[in-house]
Amino acid sequence: MSKKVLVPIADGTEEIEAVVIIDILRRAGANVTVAGLTENVKCSRNVKIKADIVLDSIRDDADFDLIVLPGGGKGVENLIKSNKLRTIIENNRLKSLIAAICAAPLILDKFGIITRELHFTSHPSVKSRFTHGHYSDGTVVISNNVITSRGAGTAFEFALALVEQLYGKSMAEEISDDILYWR
Amino acid sequence: MSKKVLVPIADGTEEIEAVVIIDILRRAGANVTVAGLTENVKCSRNVKIKADIVLDSIRDDADFDLIVLPGGGKGVENLIKSNKLRTIIENNRLKSLIAAICAAPLILDKFGIITRELHFTSHPSVKSRFTHGHYSDGTVVISNNVITSRGAGTAFEFALALVEQLYGKSMAEEISDDILYWR
Repeated sequence: MSKKVLVPIADGTEEIEAVVIIDILRRAGANVTVAGLTENVKCSRNVKIKADIVLDSIRDDADFDLIVLPGGGKGVENLIKSNKLRTIIENNRLKSLIAAICAAPLILDKFGIITRELHFTSHPSVKSRFTHGHYSDGTVVISNNVITSRGAGTAFEFALALVEQLYGKSMAEEISDDILYWR
Repeated sequence: MSKKVLVPIADGTEEIEAVVIIDILRRAGANVTVAGLTENVKCSRNVKIKADIVLDSIRDDADFDLIVLPGGGKGVENLIKSNKLRTIIENNRLKSLIAAICAAPLILDKFGIITRELHFTSHPSVKSRFTHGHYSDGTVVISNNVITSRGAGTAFEFALALVEQLYGKSMAEEISDDILYWR
């Protein structure tokens, strides 16, 4: 069955991280919704992406199998201010996978998803800004239902780890082979 | 001095390849123009990118330091039909770097850039369709002024090789460190 995935984006989102996540999860067969704070988003290196939907139009009680937050400093600053995003994540936190890469784990810290016991990682440049949890230097860190990673250069490993969680290891390997990516 | 780079895209372009190339080259300081066959482009996994400019609005004699062609089967089919793209590449072929990844080296074969002596690579799935040159299984192949690579999973190595050609090895290493990508 097709898994429902939400990828929120905003002005300043890191475009490599957003697009690697979206593309790889769609290759796996996921039903990925790219939800922009605005319909047209200008990413961190000026790539202009049109969202599938505006985030505020999503129902507060919409269910997702996975919510994935791309990084980019300004994009994270913008997403962290979204009450809609906070509500959707809070409503899904016990039943869904929650994932974030680069600076985006800061959103999870702010929204109370990174709890005292949780292990996580982020871009090293924002390491000092976390208030909870156990910081790890792993490329992809899986702790309870929370999956985190470090930066644009780890986006393939992150996206393939998400595929593995939703669809199993053989699907992740099949996609790696198709795109000629070897971990 | 800022290097001028042209990245043509079309409906069906592989979005990871396009965005990794654009983002990494902009991180290096290049003046990258994303030129769409149409203003709004729907990529291979339905990511919607708005081009900076429509390809047909570029002057035939515009100079670039580098022209980079992203892959994606349908995107390559569309780009291969563009007389404007052929003209711009022909006018730059002796003074510019020409690069292509995944299925896009087929465009170079069709436009006469892959000559009898040239070494190149591509996505393995289109290997049998080339009419000239020496096929290589290398991840990134540099032969004269032509640089080719294999697929979305080799996009970082490809983009960083392009940075190295334009700006030198230390710039490529600095970007690798920033994005946490280690070759």
